[in-house]
Amino acid sequence: MTTSLRMVVVGADAAGMSAAHQALRGAARRGRRIEVVVLERSQHTSYSACGLPYWVAGDVDGPARLLARSAAQHREMGVDLRMGATATGLDLDAGFVEYVDDAGGHRVDFDEVVLATGAAPIVPRWARDDRGALRPGVRPLKNLDDGAYWIDRFGGGRPGRAVVVGGGYVGLEMAEALLRRGWSTTLITRSRVMNTLDEDMSTRIEPALAEAGVEVVSETTAVALECRGAAGATVVATADGRTYAADAVVLATGVEPVSELGAAAGLPLGKSGGYLPDPAGRLAAGVWAAGDCCESLHRVTGEYVFFPLGTHANKQGRVVGENISGGSATFGGVLGTAVTRFAAGGAHVEVAHTGLSSAEAETAGLRTAGLVTEGRTASGYMPQARPIATKVLAERGTRRLLGMQIVGGQGAGKRIDTAAAALWGRLTVDDLAQMDLAYAPPFATVWEAVQLAARRLADRL
Amino acid sequence: MTTSLRMVVVGADAAGMSAAHQALRGAARRGRRIEVVVLERSQHTSYSACGLPYWVAGDVDGPARLLARSAAQHREMGVDLRMGATATGLDLDAGFVEYVDDAGGHRVDFDEVVLATGAAPIVPRWARDDRGALRPGVRPLKNLDDGAYWIDRFGGGRPGRAVVVGGGYVGLEMAEALLRRGWSTTLITRSRVMNTLDEDMSTRIEPALAEAGVEVVSETTAVALECRGAAGATVVATADGRTYAADAVVLATGVEPVSELGAAAGLPLGKSGGYLPDPAGRLAAGVWAAGDCCESLHRVTGEYVFFPLGTHANKQGRVVGENISGGSATFGGVLGTAVTRFAAGGAHVEVAHTGLSSAEAETAGLRTAGLVTEGRTASGYMPQARPIATKVLAERGTRRLLGMQIVGGQGAGKRIDTAAAALWGRLTVDDLAQMDLAYAPPFATVWEAVQLAARRLADRL
Repeated sequence: MTTSLRMVVVGADAAGMSAAHQALRGAARRGRRIEVVVLERSQHTSYSACGLPYWVAGDVDGPARLLARSAAQHREMGVDLRMGATATGLDLDAGFVEYVDDAGGHRVDFDEVVLATGAAPIVPRWARDDRGALRPGVRPLKNLDDGAYWIDRFGGGRPGRAVVVGGGYVGLEMAEALLRRGWSTTLITRSRVMNTLDEDMSTRIEPALAEAGVEVVSETTAVALECRGAAGATVVATADGRTYAADAVVLATGVEPVSELGAAAGLPLGKSGGYLPDPAGRLAAGVWAAGDCCESLHRVTGEYVFFPLGTHANKQGRVVGENISGGSATFGGVLGTAVTRFAAGGAHVEVAHTGLSSAEAETAGLRTAGLVTEGRTASGYMPQARPIATKVLAERGTRRLLGMQIVGGQGAGKRIDTAAAALWGRLTVDDLAQMDLAYAPPFATVWEAVQLAARRLADRL
Repeated sequence: MTTSLRMVVVGADAAGMSAAHQALRGAARRGRRIEVVVLERSQHTSYSACGLPYWVAGDVDGPARLLARSAAQHREMGVDLRMGATATGLDLDAGFVEYVDDAGGHRVDFDEVVLATGAAPIVPRWARDDRGALRPGVRPLKNLDDGAYWIDRFGGGRPGRAVVVGGGYVGLEMAEALLRRGWSTTLITRSRVMNTLDEDMSTRIEPALAEAGVEVVSETTAVALECRGAAGATVVATADGRTYAADAVVLATGVEPVSELGAAAGLPLGKSGGYLPDPAGRLAAGVWAAGDCCESLHRVTGEYVFFPLGTHANKQGRVVGENISGGSATFGGVLGTAVTRFAAGGAHVEVAHTGLSSAEAETAGLRTAGLVTEGRTASGYMPQARPIATKVLAERGTRRLLGMQIVGGQGAGKRIDTAAAALWGRLTVDDLAQMDLAYAPPFATVWEAVQLAARRLADRL
């Protein structure tokens, strides 16, 4: 080929840059010519958002360590990366993107366009002032600028009182970071900590937080921010009428897809507001999407779901880049696999899940059976042994494995991958109970914890 | 039913006692009557053989901690357990077992017999005196008596010089135990340490042993034991003419199935000398076998292999007990999954494998591709990050996953279970590359190490 294809990517984080580089690699492999333009509105590219809490906690030296690649490195690898470039318009018929940067407005034509605009933190109204700006001392933790803000606040000086709003992954991780920084920490969550787990599992998490000294306020929402007293101390008020003094308020209230650009161009959106790519990553002819601005097909239910995670962003970006460069790749879907931990103040709890929870299975109309089994991460006589609670969920009749949830001590969390692999292969709970997993006393019990759980459920099905 | 079935089990360790209890449970569930007689030649039952090195190392307080259940507990649960009872004859036609105990010779009739006689350590000729007894200071580590012997030797007093003969799991674990006890340790192995792994993986283990202070002597065999000098110091001589002074010699030279009883009764044996049960655990009508005295069907090759492991013994025993009590269970086969570690003297290396090695795949006549990939156990910027080398093996053409090997730091080993689950489900290397595995910075890289390895191999297939 002598003509060159132009691919324009909007967003230079995991999904966008995976797409960009895979397209370059794929084109090179196939002897095709491709020009890759990437528009990024911020001054950062390819950073680990998941690493931000650990930067704030002090595990990570500085923001440079969180960068997978610099803008200069991307450019050296052949990407026409335009930083500080905010896409403002998308014309799918004429095939161009409009954007603005410091130099003014621009337009770039494309043969293929990839929407990789990510997700943005959900900011409650009470966290903003009348002009819509975040109020002082209140901020989410989504990007490197947020990280720098919180490092400045928590990284030195006299520890104060912090309120974390939100009991999901980021809330839990920031509670760890704050405790490790010596701050008095209150966590407010509208239902319970880690409510993506069924209640019979999530209730096992709070004792670890309490043990470490976190004040957990559950089943209520933060509704207002007040300034009180002569010193103007900030107070967070909750729906049940209580107040919590705070020198800093971390918003961990989730994210939502950034999809205005495509929505304005007439692209359909899902319930969450995310794009709905097919397994090839395609939205329409020549139009693609990847990463946190998308919903993904759930491999168990076949429904679109919103699981904004770097692991999917990387894979989806790769699939899109491969397809644009002439390949034929598909994204196999998501299982909702996730893991985190809370490790501070002598407590260490790991939390993981994959597949459906009981609540999700019920919504999907599946006839299920679930069981929580208590086990150990290592042989009971070993010093490494920690408790691990495993909930297994299977479909009645087909005996198909539907999901697993884990709450346990050190070494518990990553065992979820065994269930994720079994779910990926559409295996039964009997398969999981029977499979040949690794055993040695420092690593597992002779009936591995996840397998013991599967066996017990299999016996009851 | 009013008539009672009598089941006689020979051997009261994992396989035998799993069979016994499952038969009792299954019969109770089905309203059947069953009488379970178990013959055990030793004075111990249901102990964790895998825990012995950790007892010697000092992790485990005493032998009682290694016992899953005492003889009294088994009896309370309804098992007619006869200790110190050595089976001497098996008549399959007439249906009885002959045995001797302190009171003399006995005979017990059966409707169903389960052979669960385990495996015995392979003891080289040079380790025995003219009358066949183990020479002083030389002993394997297979049962609780061996453990007590070595605890007496290593658990106190002035540390000396130990030679471990054998570089497999027990050899590695005993090298750890000896170092942790302060002994100067030499490990002699006929090929290389952990030669169940391919050489491009196993060579990654020796540096950790050397770093910790173990003298590794590879590619030679111990051939003689000599007493030298006035003090009568023991010296181990190797085939290449070198000698190694030793105050203690630990034999870690593997085990072989104990199958004389069935062999004498005309039951066929495999290449290793083990019984060859079908997936139901049956050798012949009314005759069953389970555990380390058996070969097992390999799930990848379909061939009988000898993998004496407690995990299989427990599952196989359960299958046999279920079938004898009127159920219909099968053992799904083995993958050869195993994990161990060497953690002493500042070194920590974890070693794991599942499925076929390159050498095994070649023997099986498979067209394979393999690749070693270097990764990290956690995000590179996290303090938990340790190196992990992952070798993935897949079949050309079908792209079927065939095996995985892992050598890495803390947290590396148990990741093998993800590959084991994928192998169990007969998934492809592409499945492993694409599946939704758990990520958070303290637990993994965003492309999980085992998945990165699979993806790289998939790209090359």
